[in-house]
Amino acid sequence: MPTDLPGDWTTEEEESLLTCRIFDVHRARARSPRSGNVHDVYRIITPDWVNVIPLTPDGQVVMVRQFRHGTRALTLEIPGGMVDPGESPAAAAARELLEETGYAGGAVQALGAVEPNPALFENRCHTYLVRDVLRVDEIRNEGAEETSVELHPLTDVPRLIREGAITHALVVAAFHWLSLSEAETPR
Amino acid sequence: MPTDLPGDWTTEEEESLLTCRIFDVHRARARSPRSGNVHDVYRIITPDWVNVIPLTPDGQVVMVRQFRHGTRALTLEIPGGMVDPGESPAAAAARELLEETGYAGGAVQALGAVEPNPALFENRCHTYLVRDVLRVDEIRNEGAEETSVELHPLTDVPRLIREGAITHALVVAAFHWLSLSEAETPR
Repeated sequence: MPTDLPGDWTTEEEESLLTCRIFDVHRARARSPRSGNVHDVYRIITPDWVNVIPLTPDGQVVMVRQFRHGTRALTLEIPGGMVDPGESPAAAAARELLEETGYAGGAVQALGAVEPNPALFENRCHTYLVRDVLRVDEIRNEGAEETSVELHPLTDVPRLIREGAITHALVVAAFHWLSLSEAETPR
Repeated sequence: MPTDLPGDWTTEEEESLLTCRIFDVHRARARSPRSGNVHDVYRIITPDWVNVIPLTPDGQVVMVRQFRHGTRALTLEIPGGMVDPGESPAAAAARELLEETGYAGGAVQALGAVEPNPALFENRCHTYLVRDVLRVDEIRNEGAEETSVELHPLTDVPRLIREGAITHALVVAAFHWLSLSEAETPR
């Protein structure tokens, strides 16, 4: 049994193997602090992501239905996307909300952040809450995006997760952040 | 504004661009049902994943501390990993629990599953609960794995997430599944 605790590995070298428009794949040579051995590791480099829980004044979540090419299925998600260069995560959340749903609302309130997959990805996903959203514009799909909007009562979300209607881990994590926020500061 | 709802895209062709030991990167040509246009999409192909919340008889979660090469930082996670070929997700959960922590317990109880990222990944992550776990063996790290075990009271987990000690989205999603399970079937 190893007696020393896990520590930070050092990177000996790193190269980009592939560029895929929304992510790059890197291979790095990393040295173990425990054994001193060097191992190849693969890393996926992409900008930070955001997602946002938009709540209407009557307690509905503004959700997005879209086809996802990883699973090749339609998903039910909250709005979200990549943070653009020079953009703050909060600004990205407000922008994605408006582009994907045509809704806008009050203050963009940070709920928390997660690492989508720290084993592979370098980035973080920042989650926001926007209350009192209203429909102010049309959906503006860009490129290959094809989305539609569905309103679901916030109180239905646990059932939608249990029944497999909401499957995206980052969306589930967002609703967990909301539940932690509600547990801390009831309104 | 588009009036037709999002539908299933069709795949015209697909090729593997890169093989990275634990995942492959594919490029597919996909045709939109709305516009009829063809777009390149990138997909990351990897086996299903599992993770498991191991609870000791006195309400501690058996957690794993390890260095992650995506974020280049130490993380605090629950045990988990890839489902081996021919293995059931529940068997993989019990195996990862034993290998990464040296603990084993009672029944492997399914809590739910998420899609780690349906935009990019094809796979699912299955989450399990194992109660009444006890230390039965040594940690058996394989290859470049270097893990240590930490016990944390389940009641501390919301604070550990809030404070950023637990950051992995799939771990946060696992604890959300547990909270949904507890809301449904109090014990």
